[in-house]
Amino acid sequence: MSQPSHLPYGGIATFARALAVQPDGDWRAFAAVLGIPYDIALGFRPGARFAPRALREASLRYTPPFSGLDGRVRLDPAQSPDPLIVDAGDVILPSLEPELARGRITQAARQVKARCRVPVFLGGDHSVTYPLLRAFHDIPELHVIQLDAHLDFTDTRNDTRYSNSSPFRRACEDLPNLVHITTFGLRGLRFDAEAVAAARARGHTLVPMEQVESQFQTLLESMPAHRPVYLSIDVDAFDPAVLPGTSSPEPDGLTYALTMRLIREVVRRHQVVALDVVELAPNLDPTGRSELLAARLIMETLAEVFGTGAHHAGA
Amino acid sequence: MSQPSHLPYGGIATFARALAVQPDGDWRAFAAVLGIPYDIALGFRPGARFAPRALREASLRYTPPFSGLDGRVRLDPAQSPDPLIVDAGDVILPSLEPELARGRITQAARQVKARCRVPVFLGGDHSVTYPLLRAFHDIPELHVIQLDAHLDFTDTRNDTRYSNSSPFRRACEDLPNLVHITTFGLRGLRFDAEAVAAARARGHTLVPMEQVESQFQTLLESMPAHRPVYLSIDVDAFDPAVLPGTSSPEPDGLTYALTMRLIREVVRRHQVVALDVVELAPNLDPTGRSELLAARLIMETLAEVFGTGAHHAGA
Amino acid sequence: MSQPSHLPYGGIATFARALAVQPDGDWRAFAAVLGIPYDIALGFRPGARFAPRALREASLRYTPPFSGLDGRVRLDPAQSPDPLIVDAGDVILPSLEPELARGRITQAARQVKARCRVPVFLGGDHSVTYPLLRAFHDIPELHVIQLDAHLDFTDTRNDTRYSNSSPFRRACEDLPNLVHITTFGLRGLRFDAEAVAAARARGHTLVPMEQVESQFQTLLESMPAHRPVYLSIDVDAFDPAVLPGTSSPEPDGLTYALTMRLIREVVRRHQVVALDVVELAPNLDPTGRSELLAARLIMETLAEVFGTGAHHAGA
Amino acid sequence: MSQPSHLPYGGIATFARALAVQPDGDWRAFAAVLGIPYDIALGFRPGARFAPRALREASLRYTPPFSGLDGRVRLDPAQSPDPLIVDAGDVILPSLEPELARGRITQAARQVKARCRVPVFLGGDHSVTYPLLRAFHDIPELHVIQLDAHLDFTDTRNDTRYSNSSPFRRACEDLPNLVHITTFGLRGLRFDAEAVAAARARGHTLVPMEQVESQFQTLLESMPAHRPVYLSIDVDAFDPAVLPGTSSPEPDGLTYALTMRLIREVVRRHQVVALDVVELAPNLDPTGRSELLAARLIMETLAEVFGTGAHHAGA
Amino acid sequence: MSQPSHLPYGGIATFARALAVQPDGDWRAFAAVLGIPYDIALGFRPGARFAPRALREASLRYTPPFSGLDGRVRLDPAQSPDPLIVDAGDVILPSLEPELARGRITQAARQVKARCRVPVFLGGDHSVTYPLLRAFHDIPELHVIQLDAHLDFTDTRNDTRYSNSSPFRRACEDLPNLVHITTFGLRGLRFDAEAVAAARARGHTLVPMEQVESQFQTLLESMPAHRPVYLSIDVDAFDPAVLPGTSSPEPDGLTYALTMRLIREVVRRHQVVALDVVELAPNLDPTGRSELLAARLIMETLAEVFGTGAHHAGA
Amino acid sequence: MSQPSHLPYGGIATFARALAVQPDGDWRAFAAVLGIPYDIALGFRPGARFAPRALREASLRYTPPFSGLDGRVRLDPAQSPDPLIVDAGDVILPSLEPELARGRITQAARQVKARCRVPVFLGGDHSVTYPLLRAFHDIPELHVIQLDAHLDFTDTRNDTRYSNSSPFRRACEDLPNLVHITTFGLRGLRFDAEAVAAARARGHTLVPMEQVESQFQTLLESMPAHRPVYLSIDVDAFDPAVLPGTSSPEPDGLTYALTMRLIREVVRRHQVVALDVVELAPNLDPTGRSELLAARLIMETLAEVFGTGAHHAGA
Repeated sequence: MSQPSHLPYGGIATFARALAVQPDGDWRAFAAVLGIPYDIALGFRPGARFAPRALREASLRYTPPFSGLDGRVRLDPAQSPDPLIVDAGDVILPSLEPELARGRITQAARQVKARCRVPVFLGGDHSVTYPLLRAFHDIPELHVIQLDAHLDFTDTRNDTRYSNSSPFRRACEDLPNLVHITTFGLRGLRFDAEAVAAARARGHTLVPMEQVESQFQTLLESMPAHRPVYLSIDVDAFDPAVLPGTSSPEPDGLTYALTMRLIREVVRRHQVVALDVVELAPNLDPTGRSELLAARLIMETLAEVFGTGAHHAGA
Repeated sequence: MSQPSHLPYGGIATFARALAVQPDGDWRAFAAVLGIPYDIALGFRPGARFAPRALREASLRYTPPFSGLDGRVRLDPAQSPDPLIVDAGDVILPSLEPELARGRITQAARQVKARCRVPVFLGGDHSVTYPLLRAFHDIPELHVIQLDAHLDFTDTRNDTRYSNSSPFRRACEDLPNLVHITTFGLRGLRFDAEAVAAARARGHTLVPMEQVESQFQTLLESMPAHRPVYLSIDVDAFDPAVLPGTSSPEPDGLTYALTMRLIREVVRRHQVVALDVVELAPNLDPTGRSELLAARLIMETLAEVFGTGAHHAGA
Repeated sequence: MSQPSHLPYGGIATFARALAVQPDGDWRAFAAVLGIPYDIALGFRPGARFAPRALREASLRYTPPFSGLDGRVRLDPAQSPDPLIVDAGDVILPSLEPELARGRITQAARQVKARCRVPVFLGGDHSVTYPLLRAFHDIPELHVIQLDAHLDFTDTRNDTRYSNSSPFRRACEDLPNLVHITTFGLRGLRFDAEAVAAARARGHTLVPMEQVESQFQTLLESMPAHRPVYLSIDVDAFDPAVLPGTSSPEPDGLTYALTMRLIREVVRRHQVVALDVVELAPNLDPTGRSELLAARLIMETLAEVFGTGAHHAGA
Repeated sequence: MSQPSHLPYGGIATFARALAVQPDGDWRAFAAVLGIPYDIALGFRPGARFAPRALREASLRYTPPFSGLDGRVRLDPAQSPDPLIVDAGDVILPSLEPELARGRITQAARQVKARCRVPVFLGGDHSVTYPLLRAFHDIPELHVIQLDAHLDFTDTRNDTRYSNSSPFRRACEDLPNLVHITTFGLRGLRFDAEAVAAARARGHTLVPMEQVESQFQTLLESMPAHRPVYLSIDVDAFDPAVLPGTSSPEPDGLTYALTMRLIREVVRRHQVVALDVVELAPNLDPTGRSELLAARLIMETLAEVFGTGAHHAGA
Repeated sequence: MSQPSHLPYGGIATFARALAVQPDGDWRAFAAVLGIPYDIALGFRPGARFAPRALREASLRYTPPFSGLDGRVRLDPAQSPDPLIVDAGDVILPSLEPELARGRITQAARQVKARCRVPVFLGGDHSVTYPLLRAFHDIPELHVIQLDAHLDFTDTRNDTRYSNSSPFRRACEDLPNLVHITTFGLRGLRFDAEAVAAARARGHTLVPMEQVESQFQTLLESMPAHRPVYLSIDVDAFDPAVLPGTSSPEPDGLTYALTMRLIREVVRRHQVVALDVVELAPNLDPTGRSELLAARLIMETLAEVFGTGAHHAGA
Repeated sequence: MSQPSHLPYGGIATFARALAVQPDGDWRAFAAVLGIPYDIALGFRPGARFAPRALREASLRYTPPFSGLDGRVRLDPAQSPDPLIVDAGDVILPSLEPELARGRITQAARQVKARCRVPVFLGGDHSVTYPLLRAFHDIPELHVIQLDAHLDFTDTRNDTRYSNSSPFRRACEDLPNLVHITTFGLRGLRFDAEAVAAARARGHTLVPMEQVESQFQTLLESMPAHRPVYLSIDVDAFDPAVLPGTSSPEPDGLTYALTMRLIREVVRRHQVVALDVVELAPNLDPTGRSELLAARLIMETLAEVFGTGAHHAGA
């Protein structure tokens, strides 16, 4: 008989029951989780500060080893020389002082990035992607693939340049190596015309929601193969019926299945250098399914990257 | 830099930050919002009385000017000689005394109708559509397009003739000019056979949910062009996954996208003389997405009617 | 005018306002409801103990007689010589003492089964299906059709052989007459490879979610016609957007419409000897739509079996 | 060992597991429960329509026989020749048509009153006390003892004379035998000066919250002994911390202990001819403690009246 | 009969149905409400950004004119030459950029202060009291009376000097006229020893919760009479049973009654120059009683200040 | 400036940010926390399985070092040679198999007890106190002080001898060294007369709620001084207004202040050998104040025991 193990609600909640480490500690791992419980840059309903802890708890339903029906999705720590996943805890953040916060986020991200193959960043609102991307300034020809209902390329919103509407604008200004952004899932009434024009002027690819399914394969193929990709998943890309726990939901979004097909294609063709999952507000979904879905998305993405996912099995 | 403006949770909540007016005041506008916080005529879970205020708050995420990605949906007050929208507040209603309530609803609706091109009525349960329609007794050959899971054409339910199951029956009895009703989205176990027969005897068009997508275009084309249409949207027409905050949800309903395609077609072919949105019960949806979706529906419909919506752009 | 009758929130809540009886009383009926408020065998979020009462309350929106639009789904007590439905109450269960609980469940199920054509069992977690199936040990060549995201065929989980992961494993060990299980809707990351292999070794049919729609008809036709079928519906087979109130939701599940198409086909080709609905946790869905959907599913299935459902009308 | 019995969440929920009867059936009992799921006469937050069912469910934690520590509060069906309690179900009510509703309430109350010693009426909003009191028109020199934050003696509110602000005004107009009302627990900012004056002109006793504890004994002694008393308990008399589930909470209200001391004194000195519990809105208290407290209040009051309560034991 | 008027859930929600004005408009009033929907300076559970709107809605249950039982608390607009209350809306705030936010708060507070006798500031978290107090730099010998579980006099917390732990420290540094602070209701485990010492070194009066009742009268009398008092009410001063909707509740706090006795004594002896109510998080209390209590507190305080409250009536 | 540190919602949640250890690891500490996420032995509303994790999260608002106002309650890790607190995680429990679960609980409790001075056990329902007490079989003349609304001394309930109604009955049968139990806070309608008699026959002290305040000092003094005391706190001892998150609330319970006065007296006169906190159901209290209060209770009790609490300071 196997060893006794905890049910999902039992035990101290590190991500997927991984070893807890310090970002700057003495460790190596395939993947490392880092939380950024920061949500003061959003402009509507707060709560993303609670996401890292909620994701840790939800992840306990998906602790490896696991394998899907017919073994199409598998993740088995025994196959990894280094630890498969470690949990680097959360960045220590001030409640105010945004610039200090951004500095700490960048620093911790750099430390984690130096010690693992795939850092997994748990936001926080989408503003954190800017300081996170700064940790990847040394990767030549970095691509960003963004899943999002909104463009987040606005220059200034409500008198601030660092809100969750602007992370990619700031990143493009700072990081010459950030050559291209593809955004999947755009929809809704409100678009900043200047931002749309600026993104297009830089050559970014903007994919409205209704074209995602028909075009994602072609679009990913149009990128030169095997590029380093930072994958930024704003959970409001999902349909709010599927994931209601987010600050600014927009109807008619992604299903989980389509999202995973897209991610599998990204993994198959390119090299995912990091993953962030942002804008999850667990306090806005009393059914708890929002964090469960986001946690599963992370685990399934890791399985794909680790090499035992569906696309390796000929699916 | 643009003027400072409120985030959606800031400021006194008039609809879309419109000017607050009295229904019988000295104003003109393209559209005017009138709330009817009345829900004692429904037979299950109350809460629609809270809808007008919830819709005002949710509308603040969609204040014009706005434009969708690629400008397909646009609404810009600067292009309107009159104010684009005013908020005429709510009808003052007694908590009992249904007949008195109906009288006040009709009176306020008449006042608002006389001052704008498109009145937008915020229910309230669906019983309010009967006194609202009475304000349109003077429009020759009025058509109603109803989005609804239920027919609402029952003669008597639980000993009352004025419940939210009967508004269209009463309206057809009172209003000789109401020539035709098309109902989209019908589904569920419970239909009043007498009501179905009576509606068909009058020549109404009953479209079950599973036929909406395949047939709405044909059906709208089968109407003579450019008819005056009163558009009545019972939010239980939506799939409960998309909009759970309603008294009597029925599975397998409309998506937001299909609904807007249908509404765009109505606007393209006919003349929308008024819009009501009823049966929203914000207290039944702690995620808040129900009122956000209904508020966006109103704004996007106004954009279509105002002439800058997707169907004008060749979409 | 018809007799006064209760609105759904009025009156003592027996299932569909049926007569309350004892499981071993002196009665006969077409269908009989038996609740099993037992949820200590699940491994995540409790609450299924509240499901029988929640289903009784929700059922009051669907009390017969009813008929769908165009009479496609009908249930009319007047057409039944015996009572159409009785409510046999709940099995009296200890809060601990699992073996005693299983014994009582089997005994009450036998009593109910002896007195009606279609027992309807309201779980409880899925572990109750094992003692329920024991009441059907006397039916030659019994088939089970299971709607479920999970296989529930695990030998041992967290040190117990009787959890909600194992009911069908135990049943197959005990019941030689249980010849075959078809499971529709399987999905998710975690499958017990031993359980999958064991189920296949017995010849069971495992249908992943993404193949349900394309294959259910063929699969049901591949069974010899008119077999006795025990229909076990774990509500986590549904998409969590459609039914969020369940312990262990998995994204990308069944819609209500597809589920009813599948059930209609089962009824059309085979003989449903019993129905259970398990894993509903009403406390996890504050919108209330989960129990409403599950109650409607039961009523619509009964209408199909009783002979006035859609498949009899040539739909 | 005792007979197996249900845990509180098990079984069909009649009040305290009492026999279900019709109001006009062939039965006799010490106490009979009658629900009035009616809440369209209130002016703020609805939900009292759900109270009768919630009270039935909560009552299952307090099913007799029971006895408190040291036997001070006891209720034992074995000591009653007739059934101790029966559950007469709910009055069948239209969702609109207030006058018809009032007629049905009075009729059912008369039927129940004729068959038991202590009817227990489960509101509904406080407007139902007017038609309930009409069933007691034949009791000479009827006294009402009202526990309430509000006076409910207003002539007209928001254009209606039958709202939950007016039941006692209407009753005093109609019932010459209603000689006196004592109201305990009054507090808050809003009092209708005309109503206060009218109540005092009739000689009613108005006891502000802050005087309840010091004066209830004296006040009850000042009434002639052994008077017939109709006890009307608006649950907003309680402190909202103790019972938050009510439409219009007012801070600084009654504790449960003080309420029971007051009720014990009423029972000791007078003859309780009926009890109503109104304005409970279970949907406004997700902790569930509101209905549990109200159900216990009913059971403990019945124990006092039945003769085994604390005041009979010399407490 | 009186004019028809709205039930509390009806109509556009300005505070107490007051006229909406601009902070810098052309108006005069006795009291003016100004909202500050700002909560990014707190260190635990967000939501105070929703408080101004929630307080407006809750205030509609307490619209003047009103008078308590026996006229002890009265507020009657007819007795005021100027408008009694106006609603100056909310300060327009950026979601980040704390310094800019503080500047705007001070500016709007100055504008409002110049136009009314008693500004009422609706927070927001407690950090807003610092920029609010800056608007009172011109009042000689300003006293602050603070109701609060926490001292909020910390120099630096989590790397910021402007959090909701520091408003009074910053104010004392900036405002030479702020001569003294009395804090009522202190309790809990966590006190910053340096802050306690600093407050005492300045001569501030620190009153632990358990001494409030016995000492408030003496303490207020020990102040020289008729001083200008800024009254700052952190709602976590209340017992969490009474007001659960706040970020950082501490057990064993103030009742509403004791709070009003204290406030009445302040009003009787001194001159209230402004009132703020902060740290209300309506999203944390689904029963809605938190905002109802806080709204009533404001109205009752205004009644006392306006001169018709209980202390003027000899209570 | 002090080191950066997490806000309460940041970082991996061990209890009070203590070091995570294994129950049988190589460590020594003053206090050690052990969770028992087990709630299948209760008979009403589940959720106590979620308590250990909720208590860990809530404890982060009370991480030492801290000191109350005036230093009356202090806890400073720097004053402890061993670690002040470690977090030994949760016992690994099966979802069924009660006997196996009890064995594992006893074993882990023994391991923890051997390594620290004060084990702190986080339930789970109250049934876990029986296996916990078995770990203290070696302490001569063990006393239990129980805070509880219920006696929990029932022989058999609903056919089981191991439910949360029986832990102390089982413990007294098994542990000859358990010489006496004092239960504070008893109240409610339902007492098992046989259990009351049996407890009294053993000489236990039963203190009804209404006598706690007047008698706790006398009662604790009546015990011989300096006895080993196991302190078992069922959170339903608290008033439900103060702590609503529990399965079976009973009105009129303990305040936090009275509870701490009682605990301080216990600590002052006796030797606390362990502490358990049981029956917390965080899922039943959406305001979150229940777990915050229970976490603070634990921290404040530890401060008292550690020697820097209020009673050491002459309070």
